[in-house]
Amino acid sequence: MQVRNLDALVVLGNAEHNPPMYYLTGGGHISNATLIKKRGEAPVLFCGDMERDEAAKTGLKIKSLSAYSVQEFLKQADNDVPRAAALVLKKMLTDLGVNGGRIGVNGHVEVGSAFAYLTSFQRVAPEFELVGEAGMDSVFIRAMETKDESEVERIRRMGKITTEVVRLTAEYLTSCEVDENEVLLNEHGQPLKLGEVKDKIRLWVAERGAELPDGFIFAIGRDAGVPHSQGNPNDLMRLGQTIVYDIYPAEAGGGYFYDFTRTWSLGYAAPEAQTLYDQVKEIFNRLIDNFDLNAPFKDYQKMTCEYFESKGHLSPLSANAPVEGYVHSLGHGVGLNIHERPFSGLSVGDDHRLAPGTVVTSEPGLYYPEKGMGFRIEDTLWVRPDGRMEILAEYPYDFVLPMKKWKKK
Amino acid sequence: MQVRNLDALVVLGNAEHNPPMYYLTGGGHISNATLIKKRGEAPVLFCGDMERDEAAKTGLKIKSLSAYSVQEFLKQADNDVPRAAALVLKKMLTDLGVNGGRIGVNGHVEVGSAFAYLTSFQRVAPEFELVGEAGMDSVFIRAMETKDESEVERIRRMGKITTEVVRLTAEYLTSCEVDENEVLLNEHGQPLKLGEVKDKIRLWVAERGAELPDGFIFAIGRDAGVPHSQGNPNDLMRLGQTIVYDIYPAEAGGGYFYDFTRTWSLGYAAPEAQTLYDQVKEIFNRLIDNFDLNAPFKDYQKMTCEYFESKGHLSPLSANAPVEGYVHSLGHGVGLNIHERPFSGLSVGDDHRLAPGTVVTSEPGLYYPEKGMGFRIEDTLWVRPDGRMEILAEYPYDFVLPMKKWKKK
Repeated sequence: MQVRNLDALVVLGNAEHNPPMYYLTGGGHISNATLIKKRGEAPVLFCGDMERDEAAKTGLKIKSLSAYSVQEFLKQADNDVPRAAALVLKKMLTDLGVNGGRIGVNGHVEVGSAFAYLTSFQRVAPEFELVGEAGMDSVFIRAMETKDESEVERIRRMGKITTEVVRLTAEYLTSCEVDENEVLLNEHGQPLKLGEVKDKIRLWVAERGAELPDGFIFAIGRDAGVPHSQGNPNDLMRLGQTIVYDIYPAEAGGGYFYDFTRTWSLGYAAPEAQTLYDQVKEIFNRLIDNFDLNAPFKDYQKMTCEYFESKGHLSPLSANAPVEGYVHSLGHGVGLNIHERPFSGLSVGDDHRLAPGTVVTSEPGLYYPEKGMGFRIEDTLWVRPDGRMEILAEYPYDFVLPMKKWKKK
Repeated sequence: MQVRNLDALVVLGNAEHNPPMYYLTGGGHISNATLIKKRGEAPVLFCGDMERDEAAKTGLKIKSLSAYSVQEFLKQADNDVPRAAALVLKKMLTDLGVNGGRIGVNGHVEVGSAFAYLTSFQRVAPEFELVGEAGMDSVFIRAMETKDESEVERIRRMGKITTEVVRLTAEYLTSCEVDENEVLLNEHGQPLKLGEVKDKIRLWVAERGAELPDGFIFAIGRDAGVPHSQGNPNDLMRLGQTIVYDIYPAEAGGGYFYDFTRTWSLGYAAPEAQTLYDQVKEIFNRLIDNFDLNAPFKDYQKMTCEYFESKGHLSPLSANAPVEGYVHSLGHGVGLNIHERPFSGLSVGDDHRLAPGTVVTSEPGLYYPEKGMGFRIEDTLWVRPDGRMEILAEYPYDFVLPMKKWKKK
């Protein structure tokens, strides 16, 4: 806060799916709270009396919102709701001895009402200057960029759950019977649909007490060739097709994430698919060998682009927004946000580095939707203070998964 | 939009846990998109090429963000990220033929970066006026206030899942063995902890493909007396204590909610608890009999306060923010938001009505944490166009649940 010359931080919203609030409350489950942190002082949580037990669990200093009468402030504001809320915020700040200055605003909330509220605040309290920071440069994203050991342990625990679920998925798929059209059959002898596999994955994650964003990726064939396609639930699971499986469970209620991808081909692989997979694996390995403490992350994006271009693929280094070849950036920080600092895009600053304590993904990939194939390998790595890069959850890199009850003729 | 005199609406953010984006994309799973709806025209979704398959599923008109070169806009903005983003937004608007006027902003996003982005936009595009609306009055919350039949069916389906899970919970609890201290025993013969019951509830919801916010309430004894206390996972499940069970599952990925509460006492109830429960049930019934089409919702809050005060309890009608007695408002709309229009607080406007097509909760309660007890009964009701109020998922209102393997001596 000193660096940014902020006199106080204001954090808005519930703690769920709201990384700044989660970070400061330790994951407390509080609705409709406002947290104010005066520079150099401990944060104070303003919340309703109905929340008092949950608020107390955060260990923060609590102030009851009942001291701020809604009716009274609405009257002062001629029933203009955002203006009344702005007057309440001004009163909270002055009650904490913050009488003006630069105030950072954070929190994951509905922007329509927040924008009305904050612009009203600027009118009713011109002695304050509100500072909304760009996402990847905010005080929070910077504070959250390096993880302490307890945070790394939580990410590691999510990694363990992730790889357990991936192992169950592989065991389930490879144990299926296969019909004469090379389609997998489910427990009832019916063609296995991709949606059924996704339902099992969701359940396996839930059984382990974690939360899985609905956007996780389990895509086969052409859909595997579109990086963020989640796959069509009615697709049939077939041998010899690339499956991209990108899964990022989090602690329930919006806690720490793990991010992980494997690409599989069941039973056998087309020769071209094997070649492309091997290229992705080769640059994946080369990156792991080359990551250096404190190096700019984007240097490795450049290395990845150059490698893929040397193999004849398009990449963002020479092509503008390619849709085939290598089409995205190499990785990103992981924590309470699935995507956070440091970033690796070619246009980000050199201050996005592999600093000690950062946790990042490395996820090179190749995408050929018209050929009906896509590939990505991703692990989450901890940049240890001793300079070593540690994969937080080990899992094999097999591309072809042999089927237990099927043999190639 | 015409009523609010808006020339266009801009919706920001991912579709997950973002009701306005979910509403307009039909629940499409899109990351980092911007949706712009020009008045009188169909919405256009701007998103990255990696999202193109998921975007196509929304059925909306799609424009690729790759047409807006990040590098070029950053250069124009001297590497000021919010300013570059603001320039992109200006270009998107003018590309759609919106060259100025009032622009509503919506979407559930990180307010720090959004505030920086939107205030930059006001500087780079003074011909536009950004309108952030107060939450409960926004275009979206108003558009979402009345539900069509397909939306009601989705809420009803969540209600079915909810009551199935509640029934499983009751069956599980009443089937437990009980030790000499009136503590329930789990499958392993160990004292049953509240946290174990919550884990089962989470799993039963996940098995049905729905999503349960981590803040759901299953609280016993004193904690049941604090409306938003979620309960202490280490509490033991005991006979003769009030249990408040408030559960609000949603369609996975941030879809429609159902909201439901029952209060139970296992085996038997203390006479005072039975008396208080009966009062809550009496006003609950009286409300159901009295709800009138188009009546202001807050009239029923007043009726509830008057009833409870006549029985000697505090209520918000005469007391300022009471923490004992009846301490909250009667209900709220339910849809893509767990709390939305219409609201029932004494200070809301008369335009919060039981209009045809609204879906609302009715949830009177009494809270006595010092006595170790709390009570709430809640159903979600559809205000049918024919004027009837329909409970969307029926479930019995028994307070005392008899134990199958235990009898009072």
